[in-house]
Amino acid sequence: MADVVKRLVVLGSTGSIGRQTLDVVRNLPERFHIVALAAGRNIDILAGQIREFKPEFVSYLSGDEHNENTPSWLRDEGCQFLSLEDMASHPDVDTVVIATSGTAGLSATLAALKVGKNVALANKESLVAAGELVMDMARQSGARILPVDSEHSAIWQCLNGERQAARNIILTASGGPFRNYSMAQMKDVTVEQAMAHPSWHMGKKVTIDSATLMNKGLEVIEAHWLFNMPIDDINVLIHPQSIIHSMVEFIDGSVKAQLSYPDMRLPIQYALSYPDRVANPDLPALDFSKIDRLTFEQPDSSRFPCLQLAIEAGKNGGTCPAVLCAADEAAVELFLSERIRFADIAHVVERVLEQHKKVEKPSLEEIMAADAWARESVVRLVGGGS
Amino acid sequence: MADVVKRLVVLGSTGSIGRQTLDVVRNLPERFHIVALAAGRNIDILAGQIREFKPEFVSYLSGDEHNENTPSWLRDEGCQFLSLEDMASHPDVDTVVIATSGTAGLSATLAALKVGKNVALANKESLVAAGELVMDMARQSGARILPVDSEHSAIWQCLNGERQAARNIILTASGGPFRNYSMAQMKDVTVEQAMAHPSWHMGKKVTIDSATLMNKGLEVIEAHWLFNMPIDDINVLIHPQSIIHSMVEFIDGSVKAQLSYPDMRLPIQYALSYPDRVANPDLPALDFSKIDRLTFEQPDSSRFPCLQLAIEAGKNGGTCPAVLCAADEAAVELFLSERIRFADIAHVVERVLEQHKKVEKPSLEEIMAADAWARESVVRLVGGGS
Repeated sequence: MADVVKRLVVLGSTGSIGRQTLDVVRNLPERFHIVALAAGRNIDILAGQIREFKPEFVSYLSGDEHNENTPSWLRDEGCQFLSLEDMASHPDVDTVVIATSGTAGLSATLAALKVGKNVALANKESLVAAGELVMDMARQSGARILPVDSEHSAIWQCLNGERQAARNIILTASGGPFRNYSMAQMKDVTVEQAMAHPSWHMGKKVTIDSATLMNKGLEVIEAHWLFNMPIDDINVLIHPQSIIHSMVEFIDGSVKAQLSYPDMRLPIQYALSYPDRVANPDLPALDFSKIDRLTFEQPDSSRFPCLQLAIEAGKNGGTCPAVLCAADEAAVELFLSERIRFADIAHVVERVLEQHKKVEKPSLEEIMAADAWARESVVRLVGGGS
Repeated sequence: MADVVKRLVVLGSTGSIGRQTLDVVRNLPERFHIVALAAGRNIDILAGQIREFKPEFVSYLSGDEHNENTPSWLRDEGCQFLSLEDMASHPDVDTVVIATSGTAGLSATLAALKVGKNVALANKESLVAAGELVMDMARQSGARILPVDSEHSAIWQCLNGERQAARNIILTASGGPFRNYSMAQMKDVTVEQAMAHPSWHMGKKVTIDSATLMNKGLEVIEAHWLFNMPIDDINVLIHPQSIIHSMVEFIDGSVKAQLSYPDMRLPIQYALSYPDRVANPDLPALDFSKIDRLTFEQPDSSRFPCLQLAIEAGKNGGTCPAVLCAADEAAVELFLSERIRFADIAHVVERVLEQHKKVEKPSLEEIMAADAWARESVVRLVGGGS
């Protein structure tokens, strides 16, 4: 056990991962202390979190901006406003939890890494869109990126002590709600059907990405950066029970797997307590008297074209993954607002990627420009009658 | 990769584990060199091994003894006789592979550990019968005991880097050939049926022990000593596919598993190459396109009483595990020679254990005396019409 309390910033504290992060902190007050919380527009939830965890610094969206002047109700709670970047790089902070969705957390991630803060990263888009920049920044400062995704946490746990001997990563996927749907059935699925994930309860964007398997493709790219593993050596395996969260194959043919019930608090806690593990009575133990089988299937890229689109974008590199991410985010928004059909998500992303002129070794500005271009392209395509 | 070649002694080189050990050495001549080989009576196989691996020292049984005078054919091959204990503790040796069956390897194991040689231990009985002595000897000299059993290798691999955070061991078992037999069916099974193990090809004694689940009970005791884990925290789980070789549950509820096809060369190689892993094209990689499910069942102690007998003997400690081991070895011999029925193995072992007067913290002599007493007791029981 570490002797000192880890001081945390949680960006995206009112979202699914943010709330579960605070649940872990609530159970382990002797290990973790909240220095700062940032949210979007869920001010009611944030206000409750502020009263419970008494952070020094807070941020939330007011209009389209993160506020700069601390309002009186926050002053009454004893906290002050601070920008996401200033929170993430504050001297009082040990670890920054990036639990925002989309590319919103990218500049705070870079700000934290730049000054050597460890970043517990639940946000896929930062690594997918800007993997090289993010990893370079971490290398330069010696900061660690601590994966929070259940799959990447599993890989990280399996690699413990022997990264250099790994040969392959086997990234497992539940297969989502449409695992057994025919191509014809998938054309007509509703938002409600797509939101009914069989094993995980998550935010809207990631739930739809799980239904298209885009999420798994993004995770392939993320694993590539996190573990410095060629994309060709990362294999996706459908495992509907979501008990094995991923596996690593070593050079001698031995495979290690990490298993648990699907509960994000475990990978969140592991990222925060690493290199220690901590007992937490709230985390359920696997009960093999209730698990009679674990099954496996190969992913079907004809029914789930987003998986292959992501893998190809990852291999192409440059600005392609940023375009993939942004186009997907825009397309998922259109599906959620019922402006395009489920199967159109892949079509739209594919057409935007086809039209993209890749920039190699992009700067942050070039990544953000590619992101903006991709979002506009989606609107143009769909507006034009996709 | 280590720069130096590891110099090995293989005791029991003509048995199943011994031959597979030499197969690993054959594939990795840049890593391993054979200094000495010891066998029982399989002189033809041993002679072939001597010609191929050119050891300096050799031992085999002649009559009931290991020879002391080097015969001329061995001198012609450039090797000389040496006792097992002298081989195991020879200055030219790095690692001693104990692949003998029964308690034959115990004194060589102790001789090796006493002078600080690492011991790759494929022999269950040494640890079961004399766990405290063996572990004390290793602790005193700083020698390592490198597990070769697939289950213990799996646990060891899963513990890599974080022994202190382990909470439970889940020891998997294929369930053997009689997993689905009724109590009535098991009464009449033949030697041939008991020898038909579904997933592993092994020696006779361990194959019968696998059919009774005695083998798994011995492994519980072995795991207790190897990993300093209370017997109550070691759970046996039936997993008929023999792909997951065991698991470890950590204090945060996370479980790690080690998987591979059932091939003893992998745990043998890992024990020899530890802490490195080494690529070996002969070792098969898992192909998840051919593995559609992994299943689990709870062990049934009413049909497999040997499992519980072993666990109880392990908890009782003292000379009880030595008596268990010896009584089982004698009972299995009687079953193999068709003097008792399959179900009698458990009855005989149970009655011998009931009659035993336990010695606490036994010396090697007291262990050997308990062993001899147990074997005589089996003969007495069966001779008296068990």
